[in-house]
Amino acid sequence: MRLVSYRSDRGDRAGVLRDGLVVDAGDALGLEVATVRGLLTDGLTERLAGADGDGVPLGEVELLPPVPDPEKIVCIGLNYRDHAAEGRQEPPPVPTFFAKFRNALVPDGATVELPAASGKVDYEAEVAFVVGRTAKEVAAADALDHIAGYTLLNDLSARDLQFQTPQWIPGKVFDGSAPCGPALLTPDEVPTAPDGIGIALDLNGERMQEATTADLIFPIPELLAHLSTLMTLAPGDIVSTGTPAGVGGAREPRVWLQDGDEVVVSSPELGELTTSISRA
Amino acid sequence: MRLVSYRSDRGDRAGVLRDGLVVDAGDALGLEVATVRGLLTDGLTERLAGADGDGVPLGEVELLPPVPDPEKIVCIGLNYRDHAAEGRQEPPPVPTFFAKFRNALVPDGATVELPAASGKVDYEAEVAFVVGRTAKEVAAADALDHIAGYTLLNDLSARDLQFQTPQWIPGKVFDGSAPCGPALLTPDEVPTAPDGIGIALDLNGERMQEATTADLIFPIPELLAHLSTLMTLAPGDIVSTGTPAGVGGAREPRVWLQDGDEVVVSSPELGELTTSISRA
Repeated sequence: MRLVSYRSDRGDRAGVLRDGLVVDAGDALGLEVATVRGLLTDGLTERLAGADGDGVPLGEVELLPPVPDPEKIVCIGLNYRDHAAEGRQEPPPVPTFFAKFRNALVPDGATVELPAASGKVDYEAEVAFVVGRTAKEVAAADALDHIAGYTLLNDLSARDLQFQTPQWIPGKVFDGSAPCGPALLTPDEVPTAPDGIGIALDLNGERMQEATTADLIFPIPELLAHLSTLMTLAPGDIVSTGTPAGVGGAREPRVWLQDGDEVVVSSPELGELTTSISRA
Repeated sequence: MRLVSYRSDRGDRAGVLRDGLVVDAGDALGLEVATVRGLLTDGLTERLAGADGDGVPLGEVELLPPVPDPEKIVCIGLNYRDHAAEGRQEPPPVPTFFAKFRNALVPDGATVELPAASGKVDYEAEVAFVVGRTAKEVAAADALDHIAGYTLLNDLSARDLQFQTPQWIPGKVFDGSAPCGPALLTPDEVPTAPDGIGIALDLNGERMQEATTADLIFPIPELLAHLSTLMTLAPGDIVSTGTPAGVGGAREPRVWLQDGDEVVVSSPELGELTTSISRA
């Protein structure tokens, strides 16, 4: 199943994407639940698989990020050996992470304005997972039971702001710094999950990053398990699993995003997430 | 005005605290708005000042943190010169910050269980402000227009987890790691705001920290201005402004929180925020 969020007269709604049509999830279920986070919280996605309803062509709705209102956006850093190496960082003994907030989330097809405070904005292609069931002190062996599905996230990073303080977050939180989507794919739609999901990034048509989640230092089940020892994860929480080598800041010469750039994060399994870059 | 959040049959509600009574805000306004974040988003707090309604004695309601559902919880680090010095850190040239999530928030009077993963949990008394109006690239001179009010926050910190990775957040996010409250005081109730609000912490009756916001390296208006250049701040966002000297991890011998401890963050202006500590 491919879950999407979209804007409607009734507010932000959850939909199921089928044959190019968006079927409203609440209507299909005959329930008041409106959002993807609500579907996950109420454990309704399985019932939704069999539900039916009229659809609206995908091109006629305004897509939102798959979960526009998560309680948490956790981004893992330094989780591919080749990316840690290109940044001259040791692979860490436990997962390193930081946060973004809702203001960062934008959907597939969005235009992101480069923040005025930065001249060094970089891209980071990532596979993200979304928590489906409350997770507290979950073992890695049980982790997949708590994952609702997978999507793509571009962890846009203002490198000058990121390294201005001991904490990276100032460079990670600008408005639109987390393009995410296009849809949330439930695990049955992602046969290569969790350890073989492809991830790539093209900048203006040139391949800049390419890997699979087989290359993760901390695989997805271990990430969920580790995070769940540190805090209770809630339905709808987004965990972005880190980026492979090839970021602009590690290239010679450096590559910083510019007005007019087109960035496409893609995955054979998860689709394409396109972002246009503008400078005011 | 003293705004509180409390649990009711109708879900989490906003209330106004008057003479020991909690008056439901939505009922007083005759509107459907239910939460403090909703009141702020809809700009209704001024109308509420004149509104009336029946109250329930404070002791008969279950208090929640003043804003239980913020989009962001931003915590400033190293923002008192004496605290930076006790941690042998240089005062930073720009504010250093990190995030907590909603799972961290607990109200006045809560019992917080020490996380199993840590043996070194510390306290940090802080003055927090809550954003009242959307703020993007706001000048420090205009910052107070965007502040809804002030409250207390205890930035409980698992020091072993905090320094295990380059990012502090793993030690900052455990369930209950942000006791907050007891109420959100609008600026008219805090004549010493923003630059003279007192803050102190007592551990089992012994004074451990004491300062005022006059001692902040980055005063409150500058914090809001700076953060608003990095991201759009939304109504209900909580910004905790940093802790003064006296934390347990900088003492000789070290002081770590233990089963049975009582921690009271207090302020002549903002009240008392009491937390009991337990170890499973």
